[in-house]
Amino acid sequence: MPVSDAETSLDAAIAARLKRTTDGLVAAIVQEHGTNEVLMLAWMDAEALHRTLTTGRATYWSRSRQEYWVKGATSGHHQLVRKVALDCDGDALLVTVEQTGAACHTGTHTCFSAELPVSALEAL
Amino acid sequence: MPVSDAETSLDAAIAARLKRTTDGLVAAIVQEHGTNEVLMLAWMDAEALHRTLTTGRATYWSRSRQEYWVKGATSGHHQLVRKVALDCDGDALLVTVEQTGAACHTGTHTCFSAELPVSALEAL
Repeated sequence: MPVSDAETSLDAAIAARLKRTTDGLVAAIVQEHGTNEVLMLAWMDAEALHRTLTTGRATYWSRSRQEYWVKGATSGHHQLVRKVALDCDGDALLVTVEQTGAACHTGTHTCFSAELPVSALEAL
Repeated sequence: MPVSDAETSLDAAIAARLKRTTDGLVAAIVQEHGTNEVLMLAWMDAEALHRTLTTGRATYWSRSRQEYWVKGATSGHHQLVRKVALDCDGDALLVTVEQTGAACHTGTHTCFSAELPVSALEAL
């Protein structure tokens, strides 16, 4: 389980703006500084956001492993955080990073490598 | 409730690659064609993805209203879909669109207008 609001040091004014899932999470879209390429989607709870904002190292909550993970801690593919923005309804974050190496665990630069066919485009 | 797999016409091979939440949804990151600016985060089930791929109009599942919505149907702020990509673990989509008008219901171009302070940046 993510830690409770009482256990995190995230600024209370920021925590109050987060609209979390029943699991206590918000979606974090990760975008590359400079190119604006979207690299991956991960999840943060209040504590992961606190660590990200205060350390400048992108830190997420792993839903599968049920633990915090600092991107690059094992792979060396760090993400240095340049900017974090919250969306209008508080359920998504946009994290702009300087990406070292591949963002995807498969070794590709971005996780979004599998293009799906938009059949409507044929009619354009 | 989103429609079941038996009720949707989404290609079965694509449906099999989706790793959905318990609500049957995948996150859809919406990015602007050309600028790569991230505009919003929305949600799709299999049927919303099918409609998006076949009509070329971005179509989402509203978790609050529990219904499908075609972006721009009431606001006129349509999204013409140029590209859709699935991520490595099948739980997120990247939808590249030509945005008409504001993407955000607040009237701003993007929903990610509220920047949060990254205190670690002060030490750089």
